[in-house]
This record gives sequence, C-alpha cells and structure tokens, in this order.
Amino acid sequence: MNLSSGAILILSGPSGAGKSSLITKIIDHIGPSYFSISTTTRPMRAGEVNGTHYHFVSEEEFKYEIENEMFLEYAFVHGNYYGTSLVPVKKALKEGKLVIFDIDVQGHDAVKNRLGDITTSVFTTTPTLHELKRRLHNRSTDSEEVITRRIDMAKREVQRIGEYDYLVVNDNLDEASEILISIAKSARMKIPTLQINEFIQQWEANA
Amino acid sequence: MNLSSGAILILSGPSGAGKSSLITKIIDHIGPSYFSISTTTRPMRAGEVNGTHYHFVSEEEFKYEIENEMFLEYAFVHGNYYGTSLVPVKKALKEGKLVIFDIDVQGHDAVKNRLGDITTSVFTTTPTLHELKRRLHNRSTDSEEVITRRIDMAKREVQRIGEYDYLVVNDNLDEASEILISIAKSARMKIPTLQINEFIQQWEANA
Repeated sequence: MNLSSGAILILSGPSGAGKSSLITKIIDHIGPSYFSISTTTRPMRAGEVNGTHYHFVSEEEFKYEIENEMFLEYAFVHGNYYGTSLVPVKKALKEGKLVIFDIDVQGHDAVKNRLGDITTSVFTTTPTLHELKRRLHNRSTDSEEVITRRIDMAKREVQRIGEYDYLVVNDNLDEASEILISIAKSARMKIPTLQINEFIQQWEANA
Repeated sequence: MNLSSGAILILSGPSGAGKSSLITKIIDHIGPSYFSISTTTRPMRAGEVNGTHYHFVSEEEFKYEIENEMFLEYAFVHGNYYGTSLVPVKKALKEGKLVIFDIDVQGHDAVKNRLGDITTSVFTTTPTLHELKRRLHNRSTDSEEVITRRIDMAKREVQRIGEYDYLVVNDNLDEASEILISIAKSARMKIPTLQINEFIQQWEANA
C-alpha cells in the first residue's frame, strides 16, 4: 500500500548560505517532490527566469491574490512582496509528494502555524558570520547596499534558529547535503504524514 | 565546534519485526552511539549472553533499583520486570552519543514523557499480521504459548503507532535500514539536542 500522503520540508537561512545548491541536491535524491516557487513583486535580477526562480507579478496582481486568500503565507520584505500560492502546494501534497519551500523566518512561522504536523523545518547557515560576508562579496551579484541589508537580516534570522526542527551548518556542501537528504527522507515517514488508520486496518486484516 | 549534545533514538515494534537486525545496521552507520541494554528478571534464553542481550538480575536486585530511582523507565510484562538503567544513558548523552533504545510501547511512553525533546521514536513492524506470524513460527525459538502471547501483544501495540514520531514498515531489511539510518542521522541534528545558544554566540563573534 502507498502509506505516504505528502509532507513539507522548509529550508530557511541567510542569502549566501547555499540554499539553492542544497535544494538541487535534495531534489536529485528524494523521489517525487515539488519545489514551491515563490511569487514576488521584486524586479527580476540578471539571469533569473520567470516561473523558474520566482513567479514575477505586479503589485496589483499580488494584492488581488492576497484579497482572495490565495496565499499559504506572504510577507513584505525589503520593500517587496513575497508569497507562497496555495493551489499547487495542495495538489502536490495530494499526489504524495515532498513539497520543498525556500522561505524566510516569517514564512516558516506562518506555514508551521497552518501545517505544522506535516512540516519539517531546517535552518541552514554558514559556520560563521565572517564566512557569510566572504561568500556574499565573492558572488558579486549584489550591490554593497544590498549586501549590508542581507547581513543585517541574517543577524536577526540567526537569533530564531530555535524555532526550527533542525540546524544544518553548511561548511562543506557534500556533508551538508547528506544530512539534509537524510532529513528529507525522514520527513516522508513522519507519522502525521501517513495514513496510519488505514495501515492498522490492513495490517490486522491480513492475518 | 562540536554542536551535538547527544540524542535518543527509540525503536519499538513486535518481536519478529526485525528490530535486532535493524539496530545492528544503524550502529554500523551512525557514528558514536550507545545501545542501551535493558535489565530484566526474565530467565536467560538459549544463546543469550548476560551484559550483551540483557543485564539479567534477580527480582530482589530489580526491586532495589526501583526503590533507589535508578531506572529511566521500567515495566512488568508477561510476568517479568524490564527496565532501563539511568546512569549509563546519562553518561552516553554527556559524551554526545546517540543512545539507542529497543523498548516497548509502555517504555516509549515513559521516556517520551521524561526526555521527549531529545527523543526521536520509531515504530517498526512487518507489512501484515500474517507475515509476523510466519516469521515468529519460522524462527522457532519460542513455544506455541509464547508465540500466541507475542501476537496478542503485537495486536495491542500496533494500535498505538500514532504515539510515535515515525513508522518504518520492515518488508525488506535493506530498504527499512536505509530509512532508519536517515532517521538516526537526522535525530542528531534536532535543535533541542544542539548547543544552539553557544552556536549563535560563536557565529556572531566570528565576524
């Protein structure tokens, strides 16, 4: 019998912690999954693709979706809206998939409140603040002003690690992804994500 | 820095579900661990070794330990006492080890109540009751009377799967141990088992 009824894995952490690389590794190793793409009003950056990195929409469209309760969670960060649309998440869960979110501390809080039973959450960060600064400067996609803002946000977010289920320090990508893949595999077997009553009935019936 | 401050993994499930084989696999793959050996007043079976399978003690000795609060949990099952001594568990946790328990539903309940934050629990069973009966008859270590008692107990225990964190159906030993190893690796990274405040302090200090 197919026991699993879908589960949610949330990954949070500062820009520069390596979330995108980690998520690519998870998706390659975890079986049926759905990576939830956020909807945002922020301008597209060089190299980004609409529908791959984000669903880029106007502020007007975003506010329409808010009014119609079409978001699982949304937030206003650094002058832009970011949100998670509900419909594709529900569909993926119904198909027994592992739904993967890359969302911030605010988003984590909102999803945990609504779907905490089937949610497993991981905070990932560099080993030190120094290393985070080094990575942000090295990737040179952001202006100094943006980097400063990201570092300030990282300092605030790190204070809230205790709200998560797991911490994964991304010192070495291979080691960090190994532990994240373990957490993702486990997330599928959490009791609240399984059809336990059906399992017990069928277990006894086959006597 | 060494983040981990020790964690507990509980494995429960009917006799015949394959717990011993699964635990051997976990211990081989999980790094520093301590398999908690129960203390019991039941007679030693053929092939069992004192201090390896159980600490075999007299009823008098067992009652002395109860009176002196030397058990993390204990229970009276099928006419015999079974218990988990507290001292070696505390020592192993202090050393940052993963402490592994093979205990029943009653024992799980007691440990979860006392140390739930740092405890991850797994119920494992055969795919069906039919398969459990087959395995119990095949291993031919128990009398018909004992087998009947084990099956009755299994039927009762299966009703309480919902009290656990995870369910692992042991249909195929390799697949079941792979998922159990994932759960065990994850258990070490649970936030309540980590020195989170120290981590945050050191993360910021290295700026």
